[in-house]
Amino acid sequence: MSQTKEVTHIDNIKLSEDEKEVIIIDQTKLPNVTEYLSIGNAEDLYDAIKQLKVRGAPAIGICAGYGIYVLAQQMPQDSFDSFYSEFAKTKKYIDSSRPTAVNLSWALNRMERVVLDNKDKPVSEIIELLGNESKNIHKEDIEMCTAISEHGLKLLKDGDGILTHCNAGPLATSRYGTALGPIFLGKEKGMNFKVFADETRPLLQGARLTSYELEKGGVDVTLICDNMASIVMKNGWIQACLVGCDRIAANGDTANKIGTSGVAILAKHYGIPFYVLGPTSTIDMNCKTGDEIEIELRDPNEIKEMFYEQPMALKETKCYNPAFDVTDNSLITAIVTEKGICYPPFTDSLASLFED
Amino acid sequence: MSQTKEVTHIDNIKLSEDEKEVIIIDQTKLPNVTEYLSIGNAEDLYDAIKQLKVRGAPAIGICAGYGIYVLAQQMPQDSFDSFYSEFAKTKKYIDSSRPTAVNLSWALNRMERVVLDNKDKPVSEIIELLGNESKNIHKEDIEMCTAISEHGLKLLKDGDGILTHCNAGPLATSRYGTALGPIFLGKEKGMNFKVFADETRPLLQGARLTSYELEKGGVDVTLICDNMASIVMKNGWIQACLVGCDRIAANGDTANKIGTSGVAILAKHYGIPFYVLGPTSTIDMNCKTGDEIEIELRDPNEIKEMFYEQPMALKETKCYNPAFDVTDNSLITAIVTEKGICYPPFTDSLASLFED
Repeated sequence: MSQTKEVTHIDNIKLSEDEKEVIIIDQTKLPNVTEYLSIGNAEDLYDAIKQLKVRGAPAIGICAGYGIYVLAQQMPQDSFDSFYSEFAKTKKYIDSSRPTAVNLSWALNRMERVVLDNKDKPVSEIIELLGNESKNIHKEDIEMCTAISEHGLKLLKDGDGILTHCNAGPLATSRYGTALGPIFLGKEKGMNFKVFADETRPLLQGARLTSYELEKGGVDVTLICDNMASIVMKNGWIQACLVGCDRIAANGDTANKIGTSGVAILAKHYGIPFYVLGPTSTIDMNCKTGDEIEIELRDPNEIKEMFYEQPMALKETKCYNPAFDVTDNSLITAIVTEKGICYPPFTDSLASLFED
Repeated sequence: MSQTKEVTHIDNIKLSEDEKEVIIIDQTKLPNVTEYLSIGNAEDLYDAIKQLKVRGAPAIGICAGYGIYVLAQQMPQDSFDSFYSEFAKTKKYIDSSRPTAVNLSWALNRMERVVLDNKDKPVSEIIELLGNESKNIHKEDIEMCTAISEHGLKLLKDGDGILTHCNAGPLATSRYGTALGPIFLGKEKGMNFKVFADETRPLLQGARLTSYELEKGGVDVTLICDNMASIVMKNGWIQACLVGCDRIAANGDTANKIGTSGVAILAKHYGIPFYVLGPTSTIDMNCKTGDEIEIELRDPNEIKEMFYEQPMALKETKCYNPAFDVTDNSLITAIVTEKGICYPPFTDSLASLFED
C-alpha cells in the first residue's frame, strides 16, 4: 500500500465540454468495441436507454438527468409555460423508454421538481439549476459508491484473491461501482488483488462487462465459467467473495443474479467470507424474508440460442431460466452499504441503518 | 411401474446389414442435425475418431472394433502374412487418430489378439472371428451399462427429480449409458423422472448431448445453466444427483467434468443424495487420493470464443479452463458400478470390488 495511483476510470457517462451533449459508452458493443455515443436529441436518448446502450439502474438515472438537462437547453425560453410544456412532454417520452426502470423515473422526477420549484425564475436560470441538479445526481452516486467501496475495502487485505459474480461495477453505476468498488479503490491505494470473474450465464455479464471493466482498470482478472468457482476456491485462490444485490429483505436474505446463492454455498463449504455490497436503497424493510421475493423467469432462448452461431439444444427442449436467486442470510458474512457494514443477526443490524 | 415399454434407443454405432460398413451418428452435428455416417474405408474411420464425430471412451472402442472388422474384409486373403501385414498397418493408422484415447488402443489390441491367436486358421475364418469379437466388445459394453443402470435404479423412486451434469449417456457408451442409465432403464420399466440437465460450460455437453438424448428417449428433461443448480435444488425439485466419472481414486475421490464438485457441495447443503456411476475400469486403486489426479487445462478460447458469433471477452483477458475437478469422497453418497453399489467408507467398499 506504499504508492498511491489514480486508476483509469471508465467514463461511462459524462457531459460534453460545452454541455450540449451527453456522452456514453455504448454497452451493447462491449467487449469487442469501445464506442462512445454523443447524444444531443430526445430520440437518441430514448434509443440509448431502450436498447440498453446504457444499463444498470444508477447509470440509467445519471444518463437521464444529464439528458433532460441537455434537451432543456433546446426548449423555448420565452415563457415558463412554453418551456415547461415542452419539458413535461420530453420527460414523459424519455420515461417511456424503459417503464420498469425505477431509477429512470426517479431521476426525471427529481429534475422536474427543480423546474416546478423554480417557476418564478427566468428560464435561463432554471436551465442552469437543471445543470447543477444533473451533476448532483452523478456526484451523489459517486459518493455513495465511494462510501460502499471504503467500507468494503476494510474487509480485504493486499494480495487477496476475490471471486465476483455478474456485474456490479462502474459501467452500471459511476466511478467505482458497488461490488467491484473495493477492488478499484484498493487499486488506487496501491493494493493488488487477483480477481476471478464468473462469466455469469446466460447473459454473460461477467465476461462481457466485469472482466472488461477490471481489465481496462488494470486489475489482475481471470475469467472463469460459473461451474469453475468450486475448483478455484478449493485451489486456495479465493479469500473473499464480493457480489452486488437487487433486493435485500429485512432478515438479510438477498436476491441477486442467478447463481449467487450457489457461490455463497461453495464459499461456506470452503470457509471463505461472502460479502454483499449495495446501497441502502436496495434494502426493503417491508419484505420480511427472501420467500416474499418473486423470481423473474426469462426467455428459454437466452439459454439455448442467444449469442450462439446456431442453437445449442433442440427446439423442443424445455429450459428453466430464472433471472435471480435468493441467498439465505445464513450464508452471508456481512452486508456492506454506504452507511457501514452490517453483520448478523441482520434483522437487527439492517434495522439500525434506518434509525436516526 | 405398471406398464413396460421399450424406449427408443439412439443407435449411435452399428454395423450395416451386410457388415461392410460401420454406421455412426455424427456427434459434431448434434443437436441441430441427426446425421448418420456410413464408414467403409480407413480414412473415413480415422477422420470420424479424430474429428470427434464419435466420442466417449466406450463408444470409440466399439467403433474401432467394428471399423477394423469392416476394413479386414477388404484386406488380401491369399496368405496370413499378407493379411496381417495390412492389418497391422491399418491398426497403427487408426490408433494414431486419438493417441490419448485408452479405449481406442484397448479395442484395437483386443482385435489384433484375435488375429494373432488364430494365425493357423484360414484368413476367411479369422475375419469371421474378428466380426464376433467386435460384436462382443459392443455386447459387453451394453451388459456393463445395463448392470450399472440396474444397480443405480435401486436408488431412485418413480417420479423423482434428478439433476445430472455433463454427459454420460448412450452417445458416449452404448444403449443406456452410465449416469443416464437408470433414467432410461426406469423409463423402460414404466417409471417417470423429471430430469434437470446442467448445460455444462464451456463445451455444453449437457445442452448438446444430454438434453438431446433424453428428449429423443422421451424423458422429461429441462435444460438449465450450471449456475441454476442451486435454485432447482432449493425449489425442492431434485431428489438425486447422478453423474459419471473419469477416474476414481482408492479413497473414493472422483475426477469428473468441471463443475461436478460444485454440484456435490450444493447437494450436500440441500440434503440431496449424490451418486457417481461408472464401470470398475475407472477405479484406479493405485491412485490413493484425488490429490494425485492431474487436472488437464484447456484452451482459454473455449470460454471466450467457442460457439459464439463474436468473442465474449477481451482478447487480453486471461481465462482459467480446467477440464475436470475432483469431488471429495465425503460429498459422495454412493459409487455405482457394474458389480454393485459401494458406500462409505470407500477405501473398504471399493477395495472389496477387486477381491475374488
